[in-house]
Amino acid sequence: MSEPAASPPPSRQRNRTRSRPTIAAPAYIRRKIPTYAFLEPDGLDRLHTQAEQILAEIGVEFRGDDAALDLWRKAGAKVEGQRVRFEPGMVTEIIQKTTPKTFIQHGRDPQHSVEIGGDSVVFSPAYGSPFVYDVEQGRRYGSLADFKNFVKMAWMSPWLHHSGGTVCEPVDVPVNKRHLDMVYAHIKHSAKPFMGSVTAPERAEDSIEMCRILFGADFVDKNCVILGNINTNSPLIFDGVMSQGLRAYARANQAAVVVPFILGGAMGPVTTAGAIAQAHAEAMVGVALTQLERPGAPVIYGNFLSSMSLRSGAPTFGMPEPAMAYLAIGQLARRLGVPLRCGGSLTASKLADSQAAQESADSLWPALLGGANFILHAAGWLEGGLVMGYEKFVLDCDHLGMMHKLMGGLTFDDNTLAMDAFREVEPGKHFLGCAHTMANYTTAFYDSDLADNDSFEQWRDAGSNAAETRAVKRWKALLASHTDPALDPAIDEALCDFMDRKKASMADAWY
Amino acid sequence: MSEPAASPPPSRQRNRTRSRPTIAAPAYIRRKIPTYAFLEPDGLDRLHTQAEQILAEIGVEFRGDDAALDLWRKAGAKVEGQRVRFEPGMVTEIIQKTTPKTFIQHGRDPQHSVEIGGDSVVFSPAYGSPFVYDVEQGRRYGSLADFKNFVKMAWMSPWLHHSGGTVCEPVDVPVNKRHLDMVYAHIKHSAKPFMGSVTAPERAEDSIEMCRILFGADFVDKNCVILGNINTNSPLIFDGVMSQGLRAYARANQAAVVVPFILGGAMGPVTTAGAIAQAHAEAMVGVALTQLERPGAPVIYGNFLSSMSLRSGAPTFGMPEPAMAYLAIGQLARRLGVPLRCGGSLTASKLADSQAAQESADSLWPALLGGANFILHAAGWLEGGLVMGYEKFVLDCDHLGMMHKLMGGLTFDDNTLAMDAFREVEPGKHFLGCAHTMANYTTAFYDSDLADNDSFEQWRDAGSNAAETRAVKRWKALLASHTDPALDPAIDEALCDFMDRKKASMADAWY
Repeated sequence: MSEPAASPPPSRQRNRTRSRPTIAAPAYIRRKIPTYAFLEPDGLDRLHTQAEQILAEIGVEFRGDDAALDLWRKAGAKVEGQRVRFEPGMVTEIIQKTTPKTFIQHGRDPQHSVEIGGDSVVFSPAYGSPFVYDVEQGRRYGSLADFKNFVKMAWMSPWLHHSGGTVCEPVDVPVNKRHLDMVYAHIKHSAKPFMGSVTAPERAEDSIEMCRILFGADFVDKNCVILGNINTNSPLIFDGVMSQGLRAYARANQAAVVVPFILGGAMGPVTTAGAIAQAHAEAMVGVALTQLERPGAPVIYGNFLSSMSLRSGAPTFGMPEPAMAYLAIGQLARRLGVPLRCGGSLTASKLADSQAAQESADSLWPALLGGANFILHAAGWLEGGLVMGYEKFVLDCDHLGMMHKLMGGLTFDDNTLAMDAFREVEPGKHFLGCAHTMANYTTAFYDSDLADNDSFEQWRDAGSNAAETRAVKRWKALLASHTDPALDPAIDEALCDFMDRKKASMADAWY
Repeated sequence: MSEPAASPPPSRQRNRTRSRPTIAAPAYIRRKIPTYAFLEPDGLDRLHTQAEQILAEIGVEFRGDDAALDLWRKAGAKVEGQRVRFEPGMVTEIIQKTTPKTFIQHGRDPQHSVEIGGDSVVFSPAYGSPFVYDVEQGRRYGSLADFKNFVKMAWMSPWLHHSGGTVCEPVDVPVNKRHLDMVYAHIKHSAKPFMGSVTAPERAEDSIEMCRILFGADFVDKNCVILGNINTNSPLIFDGVMSQGLRAYARANQAAVVVPFILGGAMGPVTTAGAIAQAHAEAMVGVALTQLERPGAPVIYGNFLSSMSLRSGAPTFGMPEPAMAYLAIGQLARRLGVPLRCGGSLTASKLADSQAAQESADSLWPALLGGANFILHAAGWLEGGLVMGYEKFVLDCDHLGMMHKLMGGLTFDDNTLAMDAFREVEPGKHFLGCAHTMANYTTAFYDSDLADNDSFEQWRDAGSNAAETRAVKRWKALLASHTDPALDPAIDEALCDFMDRKKASMADAWY
């Protein structure tokens, strides 16, 4: 279902990071099932043409980033003030000329390096929530302790391939220093690949610098070791912090994830077709800018579309309109030939209840069928992204395990077709003890660690627990079993020195 | 998204059944999105060939139904004792010669007639559970009062197209008389199409006879007005009660739903490919038998595959292996050209919790993508089918509403692509009040009646309720708003007379 990364890992990593969770797990998924041809080619043509028309007629503004405007001017775009307009075909051509269709993001343990693009699927935890929730302590601001907990659980889960980025905001750390603690926690407590800061250009640079300490500067210049998630300021704006961050990642040969964040009816049209066209336009421009900054830099075409409650105007998640958008955008990204981020286990629910699971599944299915390569927010997301949930996290991970099996598809051979079993078992008899069953039993079915399949009486006698309650035990067990993967003490010290110097160089800022 | 049924309704129905729930609802879904090409043609060939080989080499037993053996003998099958073997190609040929690709099942209100087959999708409640559950009263045996409640809720829900059959077992009514009360309840409290009894051949006949009273004998002989769900006795057995019931429905020109019920590793091979081949073989034989009984009779190719807990051997639901089976079987049924039943909102959970919603979504998605035309167990199913849940029922209905939107697909025109909106709204501005948003707002997004999209504070102040708790209010409101659709008093009396005579003709039996 997965294969080791194609590129060799840096030799300096080999000896110090060979440690893994005890659970055997694939580094990432190599999908064996096809993507879903949701739209006919003429529908895709209309969406792409509409995106090109938006870019030509309305254009995109780059605010506070003269270097970006210069790059566009040199590339032949029409720049008026901060507004940039693009002849139809121009952006597509820039993208297709140099953007890698697929790339490796290296983990510090090479066994955890992931491929992003093509037929790979990488699951990453939820990102960016200021709050955390668990059944016992309730909803509260996230702390650095919570942040470390989620990094540790992602490391221990067999079904997450990535450590994520801002798995929750460590609100107890000053805003201008948080990124250092976050990057360090990803390196220290996990050996899976991770994401860096984007909240200010210098924080993006610090994140990359810490990777240079870890991997070596030369290796970082030649290989992707960190991702930066860059939201557009929809509609049709890149603010300077974001476009500078995007360029910082590209300049260092690291992958920006360019994400139009569109709440239909607010930051984009209320009709889904129009919102898709806008998202496509914005993502293409961001991807193209990375290629102007550094041709051949890895980059991910991202997407985040949400719908709206007709009653309150509040954002809604897991609804059918974004599901269709994910399916369409998957096709658009594949036509471009770029790695795709979309979907996740999204929900507006406050708890890991029925609503949360339904909306999460309805977000995850179209992302997987649509061919998403990098699925951020795959575990933990609650309350429209405001909350990272401990129970939701482990329930989502179990669901991701199921999706590993689904992405592996069916195999057809003499054993799976089982003609011998039919010969052995007569009509009306059962297959329970037959040779074929015994030979295949242990690998036949996904083994969920949270679903309750007991009889009613067993379940009642065990306390009549809902899944959310069972999940408490699971996340506590994950945390209890965590051990840090080995890290070269010299590198650890260098990282700490870097952090200390940076922290000492500026006063705490809380905004 | 749906269209009225093609055939005209019987004129005698017109004047007495024109009543509907106040919620505007489609009679059924006409899917606008493609099915998913999960397997390549050679995978499908291998499965079909394997099914043909099982039928030729192992064969199927018909136990206690000499008339069925006679039909097979005349059709050229090799009959030895009760075992029937079929030359490769023979069963397929019988099916393809006369089986309708699509048919109308008439509701007594013609506005609720449904098409089954082709690109239609019909949602029907869960079927067959001995127990019911609601949050306040807990788990208990089902009663006739519960049965009526679920019929009433299905009538009131805008997202169920069908009244179902044994929506729960009315355990307080004698086993040999239950079918009369069940069919009468479907007729009395709903005007949507429904299913009849199959638990004994004479009960199947009674169910059809009540339809003759309702629709007129001549209309029933020419049109489908009732379905009968016929499970095979897997592996590779049709017991006499089932095959006689199947033939009774076909003889009356009513539609049998032929359902191999296979728990992989018990009633079929533990490997999914083998279980699919077996299910395909069994379903084909059942479908073909209806065509031998009455060429051209409507029939549905059914499927129910389940996986197993590796820890306990208990059946599991919503797992990835049956999901893949649904997708493959959808392709096999389409190649045959027969209407397909599969999927549902299945779960092993005891409650409408996270597990229930996740497993249900993971069952429903592949059924819909696989092209299922008739989705039994679409609402209410809990605990592997042992329990019909009140809260689960309304939560599932809300999910089915979302799926209506998904099946409707995206439309591309000047309005949905929204170029004018982009012209109106500058980069960085918002679309909230723009003309395009105002014109499209009320139909842009699915309006869930159970998802909570409020702020945390609003949700907390409203009681911090999980979805299951909110669902209590919803099902009570559905029941409170129910009124029986009008029924001609003369027909009502005739139905009651028939029931009274039948009940008086036999002693109560409880087995």
